[in-house]
Amino acid sequence: MATKANSVPIPTLIKGIHNRWHPDIPPFVSVKPGEANWTGAQIGNNDYSDDVKDVDLRKVHNLSGPIAVEGAEPGDCLVVDILDVTPFEKMPWGYTGIFELTNGGSLLAREFNSKACKAVWDFEGIYATSRHIPGVRFAGIPHPGLIGTAPSAELLATWNAREGALIAEHPNAVPAVAFAPHAVGTHVGQDLDEKVRRKIAEEGARTIPGREHGGNCDIKNLSKGSRCYFPVFVKGANLSVGDLHFSQGDAGIITFKMSVIKDGIEKFALKQPIFLPSPIDPVYSAKVIFEGIGVDYHGDGKQYNMDATVAYKQAAQNAIAYLMKVRNLLLSAAPIDSHIGALVDSPNACVTLAIPTGIFDHDILPSPDGFTKKDFGQCAIRSDGVV
Amino acid sequence: MATKANSVPIPTLIKGIHNRWHPDIPPFVSVKPGEANWTGAQIGNNDYSDDVKDVDLRKVHNLSGPIAVEGAEPGDCLVVDILDVTPFEKMPWGYTGIFELTNGGSLLAREFNSKACKAVWDFEGIYATSRHIPGVRFAGIPHPGLIGTAPSAELLATWNAREGALIAEHPNAVPAVAFAPHAVGTHVGQDLDEKVRRKIAEEGARTIPGREHGGNCDIKNLSKGSRCYFPVFVKGANLSVGDLHFSQGDAGIITFKMSVIKDGIEKFALKQPIFLPSPIDPVYSAKVIFEGIGVDYHGDGKQYNMDATVAYKQAAQNAIAYLMKVRNLLLSAAPIDSHIGALVDSPNACVTLAIPTGIFDHDILPSPDGFTKKDFGQCAIRSDGVV
Amino acid sequence: MATKANSVPIPTLIKGIHNRWHPDIPPFVSVKPGEANWTGAQIGNNDYSDDVKDVDLRKVHNLSGPIAVEGAEPGDCLVVDILDVTPFEKMPWGYTGIFELTNGGSLLAREFNSKACKAVWDFEGIYATSRHIPGVRFAGIPHPGLIGTAPSAELLATWNAREGALIAEHPNAVPAVAFAPHAVGTHVGQDLDEKVRRKIAEEGARTIPGREHGGNCDIKNLSKGSRCYFPVFVKGANLSVGDLHFSQGDAGIITFKMSVIKDGIEKFALKQPIFLPSPIDPVYSAKVIFEGIGVDYHGDGKQYNMDATVAYKQAAQNAIAYLMKVRNLLLSAAPIDSHIGALVDSPNACVTLAIPTGIFDHDILPSPDGFTKKDFGQCAIRSDGVV
Amino acid sequence: MATKANSVPIPTLIKGIHNRWHPDIPPFVSVKPGEANWTGAQIGNNDYSDDVKDVDLRKVHNLSGPIAVEGAEPGDCLVVDILDVTPFEKMPWGYTGIFELTNGGSLLAREFNSKACKAVWDFEGIYATSRHIPGVRFAGIPHPGLIGTAPSAELLATWNAREGALIAEHPNAVPAVAFAPHAVGTHVGQDLDEKVRRKIAEEGARTIPGREHGGNCDIKNLSKGSRCYFPVFVKGANLSVGDLHFSQGDAGIITFKMSVIKDGIEKFALKQPIFLPSPIDPVYSAKVIFEGIGVDYHGDGKQYNMDATVAYKQAAQNAIAYLMKVRNLLLSAAPIDSHIGALVDSPNACVTLAIPTGIFDHDILPSPDGFTKKDFGQCAIRSDGVV
Repeated sequence: MATKANSVPIPTLIKGIHNRWHPDIPPFVSVKPGEANWTGAQIGNNDYSDDVKDVDLRKVHNLSGPIAVEGAEPGDCLVVDILDVTPFEKMPWGYTGIFELTNGGSLLAREFNSKACKAVWDFEGIYATSRHIPGVRFAGIPHPGLIGTAPSAELLATWNAREGALIAEHPNAVPAVAFAPHAVGTHVGQDLDEKVRRKIAEEGARTIPGREHGGNCDIKNLSKGSRCYFPVFVKGANLSVGDLHFSQGDAGIITFKMSVIKDGIEKFALKQPIFLPSPIDPVYSAKVIFEGIGVDYHGDGKQYNMDATVAYKQAAQNAIAYLMKVRNLLLSAAPIDSHIGALVDSPNACVTLAIPTGIFDHDILPSPDGFTKKDFGQCAIRSDGVV
Repeated sequence: MATKANSVPIPTLIKGIHNRWHPDIPPFVSVKPGEANWTGAQIGNNDYSDDVKDVDLRKVHNLSGPIAVEGAEPGDCLVVDILDVTPFEKMPWGYTGIFELTNGGSLLAREFNSKACKAVWDFEGIYATSRHIPGVRFAGIPHPGLIGTAPSAELLATWNAREGALIAEHPNAVPAVAFAPHAVGTHVGQDLDEKVRRKIAEEGARTIPGREHGGNCDIKNLSKGSRCYFPVFVKGANLSVGDLHFSQGDAGIITFKMSVIKDGIEKFALKQPIFLPSPIDPVYSAKVIFEGIGVDYHGDGKQYNMDATVAYKQAAQNAIAYLMKVRNLLLSAAPIDSHIGALVDSPNACVTLAIPTGIFDHDILPSPDGFTKKDFGQCAIRSDGVV
Repeated sequence: MATKANSVPIPTLIKGIHNRWHPDIPPFVSVKPGEANWTGAQIGNNDYSDDVKDVDLRKVHNLSGPIAVEGAEPGDCLVVDILDVTPFEKMPWGYTGIFELTNGGSLLAREFNSKACKAVWDFEGIYATSRHIPGVRFAGIPHPGLIGTAPSAELLATWNAREGALIAEHPNAVPAVAFAPHAVGTHVGQDLDEKVRRKIAEEGARTIPGREHGGNCDIKNLSKGSRCYFPVFVKGANLSVGDLHFSQGDAGIITFKMSVIKDGIEKFALKQPIFLPSPIDPVYSAKVIFEGIGVDYHGDGKQYNMDATVAYKQAAQNAIAYLMKVRNLLLSAAPIDSHIGALVDSPNACVTLAIPTGIFDHDILPSPDGFTKKDFGQCAIRSDGVV
Repeated sequence: MATKANSVPIPTLIKGIHNRWHPDIPPFVSVKPGEANWTGAQIGNNDYSDDVKDVDLRKVHNLSGPIAVEGAEPGDCLVVDILDVTPFEKMPWGYTGIFELTNGGSLLAREFNSKACKAVWDFEGIYATSRHIPGVRFAGIPHPGLIGTAPSAELLATWNAREGALIAEHPNAVPAVAFAPHAVGTHVGQDLDEKVRRKIAEEGARTIPGREHGGNCDIKNLSKGSRCYFPVFVKGANLSVGDLHFSQGDAGIITFKMSVIKDGIEKFALKQPIFLPSPIDPVYSAKVIFEGIGVDYHGDGKQYNMDATVAYKQAAQNAIAYLMKVRNLLLSAAPIDSHIGALVDSPNACVTLAIPTGIFDHDILPSPDGFTKKDFGQCAIRSDGVV
């Protein structure tokens, strides 16, 4: 049911240039078109992946905001209607990249000893296609990868303490297990007193992970048309947004409106945002679904204890093996669904990963004659040829 | 597209009474109505939870089978069309239970110091309702909780080795991290030579977790109407099935047909089954979606490293807090979807859990006036009153 | 939201053998398994269509009921939850037939100068397949083709008057435009006083068309899981049901429960039943959609005035031409959707007809190389070979 | 499956100002932003309906085009991918209007003795809301109401002959049954030789109805993301497009690409366009569904012979009576589905009309206490107060 929140809508398009979470970053009042490429335009629409290889992650993410909402107090709930997310008219493309093991390497980086590569996706209306992955066309699910309210000083301290402890446990991990505050690259987007600016640079939480305030959750179902309920930790709520995704590539302009539910944190037992999904996410009813369990059978065969992360990795590697390796770039862009099947049957977590058949221009169903292995072209690789 | 597998369909209703995975359990030939209550009728349709508290898990699961398929050889792929799953006409009910921390206690057992309780669900056509959770009615997603091919001797040895290592790491865990072979309670369902029977009892893998052959994956989307592709590890494939779920409660009769794709393991890079979903799963478009990250903020606040299991637990506890505690029994029965949102933004895994609003007879949307807390009645508890 | 109606549910399985609508047919009290083949077993599972050619339509439909609901009064609304519809275990098949132009010939009978033919569909769990139309498999949408409350004497008189006037306008139409009461073949299903029986035979409305009380509406979305609100015209409501469809073939057993909303006719402005759809209808997202307008361009080219019937016929004939003629039997069985696109742009009504691609085991999309015409086998025809 | 047509895509944004169908209107070459308000900006965003009352329908529709596609010949099939449809940034609104019985009055004009009124809809991202119908918010289904290829001289002659015959049968009908060519108001959008211009003015088919080439079909499922296959009647195909709808209100910019399938008319038996639906139409699973039969029980009670138009009118009037009269403006804007249930059970066509419950901010389900009649505000009426 289309319930209505209780206060005046605030349609907003804003420009933002901060890249840390800190309660002392004051709100922007101006409402102007936003800038949203999450790496700050470090990645280009070209056919080599050197930009991915050398990306400076200390600079991410460029956020628009903060936006203060009048009347919002700690303990309230900020209701955000995500009305639209569209690419910039002059930049109708996005990309998916695999980062180098040693610079930003992600979930399967170690398994594949990842070298930088990328695929550029062109947007044609609601669809994305890529010259680097021919034979695929899918409807995007435009959404903000990153949206969240500002933390209070206490919450920020909690974040820094617990993430610091994790880093301390894994001091030389490659890739790193977490990212501590880092003064280099900090952007606050406003002329601030130098003392305040320095405090933010030294304490400000990196924007890479999602946390209790939302943040970089990369939830594709938080798409245009959805309504999200954020906990408010500081006066004004101070919402920031960035890393707009076309599907999981980048987009450009977000339109939303906001209202406040008093004492919403208690009313809804909010430890983290909740949301109502959009009625217009793509429907592809036919799918091939892969399973994975919490045993690293693609690696050393180790048995994990109810580990959904390991199970997800197996499901993803099963899908990649089925479709061939280049598809890894596809999985991070296309409208894939990964479900937690069961976390009850010890010791094996069970996770599924579903790939819609309708995004391919050839048949990927498992047929008795075997799956027709197709040439999926070549993604953009490093100019030194290392893959 | 409704592809067809390449050999003769084998419609099958069989009786089964084995409860271990072992290559030496020979196939059943007879095709008779199956028996499927996974605990072997240990749990009753009554209003106390003592049966749950005292359940003997060494006896689970009662499986129907094995069924040998002519022509199936190791390396092939067994195609199983799950045509229907229905409750026994004389047992139109199922249950969801929370097990005692000290006897079968599951994912959140420690968090809630679980005492046994249960809710009995009555089936009315496609719907389930419960006298223990009034105000809720949902369409079931009938599916076999447990279905899998027999392991080869090598695969069985791998299972026992890796699970044994995990148990050895956590020798006195409560609840146990995994379940070793256990001669007590073993059922092979046939008159076998005593030596063979003893070997099966001593080596036979417990049926609790899902593994590479499928098994107890509890994937609700492997529902009636789906088509599943299993790897074949022994001559004949020797498929067994059990733990039929109405939604996640018990059902009774499964109808399926089978065919074989030669060399399917290599053709499809099968490390674990893949499947095609059914066209008739329930559609409830309106949902409330909860998020969780890999930080135990419902517990000691510890930061985990990309841990989807911890993230799932937070999302589940957020949902339970929103709906109130008794709903825990609801979450394990209703058509809930849990998605892995992102496993890329270190250190926080992000998981979502979606509850359809249409299964409640009152409004559960977050309204400005707050959510109307409703009396959800009382689930069945222990006769000694301990909750 | 799963709203609840206000009185005691009445789960019901009843036997019925009446085939006319009349207020004087008293309710049955007994609750026994129903008999539901709409022609009274005149059509068999065989490979000739003579039974279709010679069917005696005066005998249709065999209805189960009437069922009186205590407390229901004229002006109330009868709420019926259709909980399940399943085939008889011993008759897991149905059929679709094209009737002879001169005996029951239907919508396109004149266009095609129809001779009797039929296709028998075998039910395999949720699916139907036909030896007469190979290459097709679809999930059924089990529903009662015919369900309605008894008319009052006044309503019955209205029906007979208006249908009589139409017949009088088209006295020798082939096929007939409507069916007047006919004493031959009348069945009342109970021992009644001869005077009453004769009155029913002479006045009783034929069960072929749907009317204000529901009746033979053949709405596939009134499927298992739906909730229907019927106007009540006589004390007790006297609900009857029949012509159970697996998809559009026959099924066997219906389970439902009923309750009453007082003064529901006025509350809901009920001129005819309204209903809430089931959450479990099949989802086939990929479709080929055909259009038709209110110009008989498949016939004499005549322009009609906002005529949705003519538009529907063109859309259906476009689909048949695309798929080839035998598919006509498919269209009346498969999960096809026909939408009224627009009835606003004079003079042309616009209607669409959507065929799911996922029910075929070959590709029916319009490809540049043209659609691969496939041998769809042979439906059952007359034993004299006339087609 | 995302099939690809066989030739070079032609992304297109064009300006058009013709409003008749005629083979002699030459193609435009320029590719510029289009103008799409179907009445040529005759209807304004204001709170009186006088503009609707006095609209000059001889001026409609303003079409963008024609666009010639190189290589397209009569007999071919033009494939059009509708990639996006968006409102003008500076005109984020649309409207739904009821026309005067005596000036454009439509389907139910006579039933309600219609006076002009309208509702203005504001677009907020994917949603539409109206100050004239408070309490409703729905996701739009942006689509071109009007899109079609140019007719050949022969086809145009056929149109004029058959529509002329209908007008001759109903010479003084109010509202008119069809619209003959009319020189007044004709727009050809280009500097043409006066003889050609006059020929077009005298013969050019009015753009109100849809016809074999597509045209004004107002099919909401021909939405952004769909792929449409048009028959080609003249060299170059000469596609025109207009009357862009947000849902059924007006939008502004359409993006599409085109390719050609040689001999497609014969390959696909194309008598009228066929299309593949978009994967992103809104999903509202919960609905209230109204039925109607081919008896004018809202009027004089007359029995019609298999008349789906009359059945549709009853279903629409049932819905209006349920929701109250003002909703008529809602029905022509919201994502309503009207299905043809059955055209087989003589004499009654059966049609259903489904309204999604999720577009209302209050509960519209039929509850035992009756439906809460709500003040739906006031639509814009004539300044003389006549309603």
